[in-house]
Amino acid sequence: MKALQVGLLGAGTVGGGVFNVLHRNQSEIERRAGRGIQIKVVADINPARAAAIVQNRAQIVSDAYAVIHDPEIDVVVELIGGYGIAKDLVLAAIAHGKHVVTANKALIAVHGNEIFAQARKKGVIVAFEAAVAGGIPIIKTLREGLTANRIEWIAGIINGTTNFILSEMRDKGLPFATVLEEAQRLGYAEADPTFDIEGIDAAHKVSIMSAIAFGIPVQFPQAYVEGITKLAPMDIEYAEELGYRIKLLGMTKRTEQGIELRVHPTLIPKNCLIANVEGAMNAVQVQADAVGTTLYYGKGAGSEATASAVIADLVDIVRQASLTQEERIPYLGFQDHHVISSNILPMTQIVTSYYLRMTVADETGVLASITKILADKKISIDAILQKEAAPGQDHTDLIILTHLTQEQLMLEAIEVIQNLPSMIGQVTKIRLEELS
Amino acid sequence: MKALQVGLLGAGTVGGGVFNVLHRNQSEIERRAGRGIQIKVVADINPARAAAIVQNRAQIVSDAYAVIHDPEIDVVVELIGGYGIAKDLVLAAIAHGKHVVTANKALIAVHGNEIFAQARKKGVIVAFEAAVAGGIPIIKTLREGLTANRIEWIAGIINGTTNFILSEMRDKGLPFATVLEEAQRLGYAEADPTFDIEGIDAAHKVSIMSAIAFGIPVQFPQAYVEGITKLAPMDIEYAEELGYRIKLLGMTKRTEQGIELRVHPTLIPKNCLIANVEGAMNAVQVQADAVGTTLYYGKGAGSEATASAVIADLVDIVRQASLTQEERIPYLGFQDHHVISSNILPMTQIVTSYYLRMTVADETGVLASITKILADKKISIDAILQKEAAPGQDHTDLIILTHLTQEQLMLEAIEVIQNLPSMIGQVTKIRLEELS
Repeated sequence: MKALQVGLLGAGTVGGGVFNVLHRNQSEIERRAGRGIQIKVVADINPARAAAIVQNRAQIVSDAYAVIHDPEIDVVVELIGGYGIAKDLVLAAIAHGKHVVTANKALIAVHGNEIFAQARKKGVIVAFEAAVAGGIPIIKTLREGLTANRIEWIAGIINGTTNFILSEMRDKGLPFATVLEEAQRLGYAEADPTFDIEGIDAAHKVSIMSAIAFGIPVQFPQAYVEGITKLAPMDIEYAEELGYRIKLLGMTKRTEQGIELRVHPTLIPKNCLIANVEGAMNAVQVQADAVGTTLYYGKGAGSEATASAVIADLVDIVRQASLTQEERIPYLGFQDHHVISSNILPMTQIVTSYYLRMTVADETGVLASITKILADKKISIDAILQKEAAPGQDHTDLIILTHLTQEQLMLEAIEVIQNLPSMIGQVTKIRLEELS
Repeated sequence: MKALQVGLLGAGTVGGGVFNVLHRNQSEIERRAGRGIQIKVVADINPARAAAIVQNRAQIVSDAYAVIHDPEIDVVVELIGGYGIAKDLVLAAIAHGKHVVTANKALIAVHGNEIFAQARKKGVIVAFEAAVAGGIPIIKTLREGLTANRIEWIAGIINGTTNFILSEMRDKGLPFATVLEEAQRLGYAEADPTFDIEGIDAAHKVSIMSAIAFGIPVQFPQAYVEGITKLAPMDIEYAEELGYRIKLLGMTKRTEQGIELRVHPTLIPKNCLIANVEGAMNAVQVQADAVGTTLYYGKGAGSEATASAVIADLVDIVRQASLTQEERIPYLGFQDHHVISSNILPMTQIVTSYYLRMTVADETGVLASITKILADKKISIDAILQKEAAPGQDHTDLIILTHLTQEQLMLEAIEVIQNLPSMIGQVTKIRLEELS
């Protein structure tokens, strides 16, 4: 049988990985797929760069549409990134009846619903395993491995850059800005790190997982997004002292009121497995009613880890191409007409626990005032850590961990606490999840 | 479309879980599969027990062959266990053109090759996600999620009973026999725990994973199997002191000389993620060339966790039934004619590191003699821990960690060490893996 003919759009780091892995493991992959996979043509605006990566193993063109219009191409692999030109090209490929594989989380998070609708009309597959958590087969797990379950929530460390920064801040006690520079020097953070450190990249990924977990459309615009730029080393230290670690979590949860969809720094218990995911590694914890807790761990980025996911999608296409649209794995794991709109809760309505840090004047009655304010809002306290005032200082750090409460109530309580005369500076609030 | 008609053989714990989950998540599962899944008939030799589980949700029969001969049944789910009657029934179901789903690791480990050959002839699917690591979709991950990779090795904590016992021995410093009794009382160990504590259950599972990882036949009879019955609490303690934890690992590894396939207690670094898998939980770490290290964690047993895997297999059958044999996911992940016999290495030829504990007379020159014997066998030492002799004692514990060496050389070295006049009692040898 003729090898699956693939056209690659974008010859960068991941493209290079796809070439190298396909070439190195050619026989292993064919033993599995029962059919060869061949990259016929590569399009890149920089043909010299492409030539260095392709090394005569495929034709190179500068016009992406030449790939899309090529009647011999079965699958278009989009590795350009972003949601400008990439969207036009993916839609054009679909319009020309090509299956599409993409590693582009931004594209799926922002335009996924439109892309799936077009693909359904044309009867083509759109696969995007590489868009979430790199080489970890988490999309396959959610769409196929856990089909028996009602998924309750997902919590993921799904951005390697921020996890590297947080691990370094904790290990070395350094401030965010210093560690970010180091991460940029080591290649763990990009020159413009905004998407990573502000949580946007994680929000793209958790929006995709949320849709697949709950059978709802992809709803990135409704996600709450808070990055790690304001985290102070002292909060990491205090958290540690209280038995917690701070991670940037992407969370999505099904509640009676609606779906929670949020990315923010989060205290999690030190002794839970996901708290021990260090450096640039990723992990996704899934809570589901039949299977209970499961966790999936691996590299979330990198040339060959991402290529691993792209090629797995290509093998799946070999296996599924001849199925009817109804028999194929649906784009979001649920049959398209069973993808049901569901309310994403505004952040004020989510329910979580909190870590609060306050710098207060070292005088009697302060703690009583604060605990009264919390009690008035029905917020109960789980733990208090009061640091001794440093010699010669007349103020001290007070840390409070709360039980579950609604964000709205917490915001109201903080507003009152903030206005106490003993309060020095701003109240720091970080959310806390027990993940159990 | 008519619901997939399922016949269940065996109405025990897992059967009950399958009923409960299918019933509770009926609409969720149908939204995914695009087709209902209905248990039409259940066979059990104890119809009263079956009735309590089935609760009028299906027909009950006492003769399993009545299920197999029922022309309306699409899939037979075998939940009897063992490889006696279960084998006959599975082969009969295949002969009658039924797809088969089984949770039976012993059956697949011992008779898998024969079963797959028959199934291929009849063009039916045999699925067994539940046979390895319960609810963790590890079979799917290996067969489909990592298809781009050349898998290098797999190390799994794949027996919950022994992991529970080891966790308790460490936490409480208690001997094996005491903890086993506790585990039996709590339902974590069976009345006859032989299969678990002697490592046979883990060997069944790792033999199956080995076949799928490397594209080789299932070769349980060639596996090396050593259980945890001889582990002393003091070895767990010394290991901890040296930065290691002892786990019962199922390991399989591709080497230039052949495939390693072995189950035994193993020291692994405390700070690696899998070392922190506690209690009855399971985890599988996979090392592969493109994706690097990935890890999969969850419940390895239990009614609904196992049911989660069984039902995922049923959904896959809904999706794949209409494919040709060549397009379907192959039984062992590799196309049947590409499953290639490969040499399983005898245990003397495997390469690993070692923990050695010796009780020696507290006199000069002992350490020199031992290190010379190891050096003569080209075994290099990674760490030594010599405990002070207790007051009034004239002997002391000496612990040595070695670098990688061949088991044969280690056995020869131990034989010589054992005969040293200063040696008191037996040398204790436990294998050690850095898992990196």
